[in-house]
Amino acid sequence: MGKEKEKKLVEAITPMDQDFAQWYTDVVKKAELVDYASVRGCMVIRPYGYAIWENIQKNLDNMFKETGHENVYMPMFIPESLLQKEKDHVEGFAPEVAWVTHGGNQELTERLVVRPTSETLFCDHYAKIIQSYKDLPKLYNQWCSVVRWEKTTRPFLRTLEFLWQEGHTAHATAEEAQEETIKMLNVYAKLCEEYLAIPVVKGQKTDKEKFAGAEDTYTIESLMHDGKALQCGTSHNFGDGFAKAFNIQYTDKNGKLQYVHQTSWGMTTRLIGALIMVHGDDNGLVVPPRIAPTQLVIIPVAQHKAGVLDKASELKDRLSKVVRVKMDDSDKTPGWKFSEYEMKGIPLRLEIGPKDIENNQAVLVRRDNREKLVVSLDELENKIQEVLEDIQNSLFEKAKVSQVEKTSTAVNLDEFKNLLDMKPGFVKAMWCGDRACEDKIKEDAAATSRCMPFEQEHISDTCVCCGKPAKKLVYWGRAY
Amino acid sequence: MGKEKEKKLVEAITPMDQDFAQWYTDVVKKAELVDYASVRGCMVIRPYGYAIWENIQKNLDNMFKETGHENVYMPMFIPESLLQKEKDHVEGFAPEVAWVTHGGNQELTERLVVRPTSETLFCDHYAKIIQSYKDLPKLYNQWCSVVRWEKTTRPFLRTLEFLWQEGHTAHATAEEAQEETIKMLNVYAKLCEEYLAIPVVKGQKTDKEKFAGAEDTYTIESLMHDGKALQCGTSHNFGDGFAKAFNIQYTDKNGKLQYVHQTSWGMTTRLIGALIMVHGDDNGLVVPPRIAPTQLVIIPVAQHKAGVLDKASELKDRLSKVVRVKMDDSDKTPGWKFSEYEMKGIPLRLEIGPKDIENNQAVLVRRDNREKLVVSLDELENKIQEVLEDIQNSLFEKAKVSQVEKTSTAVNLDEFKNLLDMKPGFVKAMWCGDRACEDKIKEDAAATSRCMPFEQEHISDTCVCCGKPAKKLVYWGRAY
Repeated sequence: MGKEKEKKLVEAITPMDQDFAQWYTDVVKKAELVDYASVRGCMVIRPYGYAIWENIQKNLDNMFKETGHENVYMPMFIPESLLQKEKDHVEGFAPEVAWVTHGGNQELTERLVVRPTSETLFCDHYAKIIQSYKDLPKLYNQWCSVVRWEKTTRPFLRTLEFLWQEGHTAHATAEEAQEETIKMLNVYAKLCEEYLAIPVVKGQKTDKEKFAGAEDTYTIESLMHDGKALQCGTSHNFGDGFAKAFNIQYTDKNGKLQYVHQTSWGMTTRLIGALIMVHGDDNGLVVPPRIAPTQLVIIPVAQHKAGVLDKASELKDRLSKVVRVKMDDSDKTPGWKFSEYEMKGIPLRLEIGPKDIENNQAVLVRRDNREKLVVSLDELENKIQEVLEDIQNSLFEKAKVSQVEKTSTAVNLDEFKNLLDMKPGFVKAMWCGDRACEDKIKEDAAATSRCMPFEQEHISDTCVCCGKPAKKLVYWGRAY
Repeated sequence: MGKEKEKKLVEAITPMDQDFAQWYTDVVKKAELVDYASVRGCMVIRPYGYAIWENIQKNLDNMFKETGHENVYMPMFIPESLLQKEKDHVEGFAPEVAWVTHGGNQELTERLVVRPTSETLFCDHYAKIIQSYKDLPKLYNQWCSVVRWEKTTRPFLRTLEFLWQEGHTAHATAEEAQEETIKMLNVYAKLCEEYLAIPVVKGQKTDKEKFAGAEDTYTIESLMHDGKALQCGTSHNFGDGFAKAFNIQYTDKNGKLQYVHQTSWGMTTRLIGALIMVHGDDNGLVVPPRIAPTQLVIIPVAQHKAGVLDKASELKDRLSKVVRVKMDDSDKTPGWKFSEYEMKGIPLRLEIGPKDIENNQAVLVRRDNREKLVVSLDELENKIQEVLEDIQNSLFEKAKVSQVEKTSTAVNLDEFKNLLDMKPGFVKAMWCGDRACEDKIKEDAAATSRCMPFEQEHISDTCVCCGKPAKKLVYWGRAY
């Protein structure tokens, strides 16, 4: 190991089944995704973590543009009076915002909120630029950071400041707004399932759990390795509530004044937390190939021997045409490098040494199942793309199986509580539609309604809590 | 004009030579680049303005990545104590920051600053992650928004909040830091000249004008149509000043502790202001093809006639393979559309009507000089790319000629003041190196030193202000 002698090999992380929270913290740190900042609850997102976010952004932004959306940028400050225009909205957000009270050494005449979300700013703008039915729909999106004054925080999952996108649209009719709300939920589901390899349950939030100011909130919910649920993205239909509060009206084809109908939808850096907790293992992170900043890492073996580094470089140049590839020719040992890139979750590694070169071959090792494949150098391009595709699919299938295994059904509250304690995951159970039952379930079982799934099933005739006639199947769970 | 009858044609904007400031405001508004926000001095960047910013970002980010830089994200808040660690830095920024004093309805024990720039956050992080010479260099960049509590503001040019990138690097030696500082200044000059078609003067700032906390600041300066100067980007060499304040040390190859040497460099949304004021004319914005969100707009003429819309659509699909193209088949008149896309500065428009189709041709009209070209449909791809290339070059050459015309030389203060009043632009004049002369020039002529250009010339032996022996040639000007 030469000069690296003094350095220890990548230290083992806490096994996930021993202490899942500690395992998560270890991975986040050892994979160099984030560093803690000097401000409580804020993150420094390091290059590797940010590169994952950039790939999420790129793919999601492409989907937004394909569906006709345009990006804009709104100010990060909201005057207090503007935040107060929509009653439910301000009630929901005011208790958890940061307040700017002074600017340039002077006290402000009106306090400003650091945006926790930007509905009020978009509405203020829409009221100015929308006059006619010809101005509709407005399909805007914004990439930015927002601040919510959370008490307890964890990297990616719950932070004072986080990165996100927020879509805000205005439509002529209620039908169009509803269509948009569902369309964007489906875009989110596609990103999760096809790119992040995270299976989700699509459904509607109950009134108790919906967004402050929304008529209806839709959600995609996923399950982590420890059986806790995580909300991956939400899409809200505002009806004309905000339009009335902000007076956003247009003249329709008959010359009549109408209120617009609005939606908003958001996804955040918490997706990186989901990715860690769905695919990670005791060796660290596992990043699905379609989202991985580096898909293949080339490790030269016995690199001091003649020809090895040349061959490795040649392969790097060749393969960079088909995959995102990196070569590590530093003076660390191959074993050290193997551990390091496993920790970072690089989907595939290629080992090449003198023997391999002699035999015109290389060794491919999969991150997900550690399977080794000896491949002829002539077939590398095809084989690598094939294996990456297989890794992507396997990760999704494995997560799907895990989700199914962790999903149970309950018909009464005792069974419900038992299941959540013994076999953490989703509990599917019928609900009468009363908020009182949601409150009781939260108190007794520390679980919340995750969603009323689009795919409704009939499990029993009565509410799992009160025994009255059931109205809806609900997915319940303990959530991040 | 049918239903559009009631709408006036694009209203004329204030001629630029009549009232340049009003012309600027008109263009910004009519080209739909920004809208005023409900917070004083903040902008709503509308889709077209943001699309220009996205193109600037994309090209600049590619250049950063080609030069080995990685993107990260730091928190938007800086604790007061952290800001105070570097003396000159806090003195420079403290008077113009926004203060967060309350979070979630509680007064904070320590006030937070909304970042005006992030040196202190990067230093805090670097102190944690840099231990050995093997950890160097660190070449980080961040895309974000920052806040400076300006008293008077104008869209893009000076706003309370603006978008930017800030590079922050740490190096083993002073030489490497200096090399990086100049390398990034050259990257900025390349973006301005090759993409934005804005010629710049490269040079060093005087001590009076340098960045708070920097050892040396380098700048690229450009001239607007009205003869006022605009700083387009700056690159700072910090030496080991911040390293000592934040204790950022590494162990060198001999096992000795050393301080790192640092740089930072930034470019902002003010570049869009420069683009407007360098290329715009009395018909509105003119966007250089390499940065234009839409490079070519297709306007069908007599579109109600059989075959016109089909042909226009066919051309759009065909041309989208080689240029960023848009077709406008709305029911506005062609004349209305011509004015609208001229206002938005789309580099090239293509008109196609029944006669053109008969003759297997289309009409191309350049935005920059309004030249019309009749082109065979068979040659469109080649011709369009050729003309766009020519527009890009012509815009740069025209701006270069304008800059030369607006640059004079002066050997005494009377001449200096006269020139600035009669022929606004850069004044090249010799300087003794004393701050007192800079202060006097500012007081008497309302001009500042823009830079000491890399390309030094000998104009006279004595300082333009005090008559003592001259040390440097300086570009002076009145600036935005």
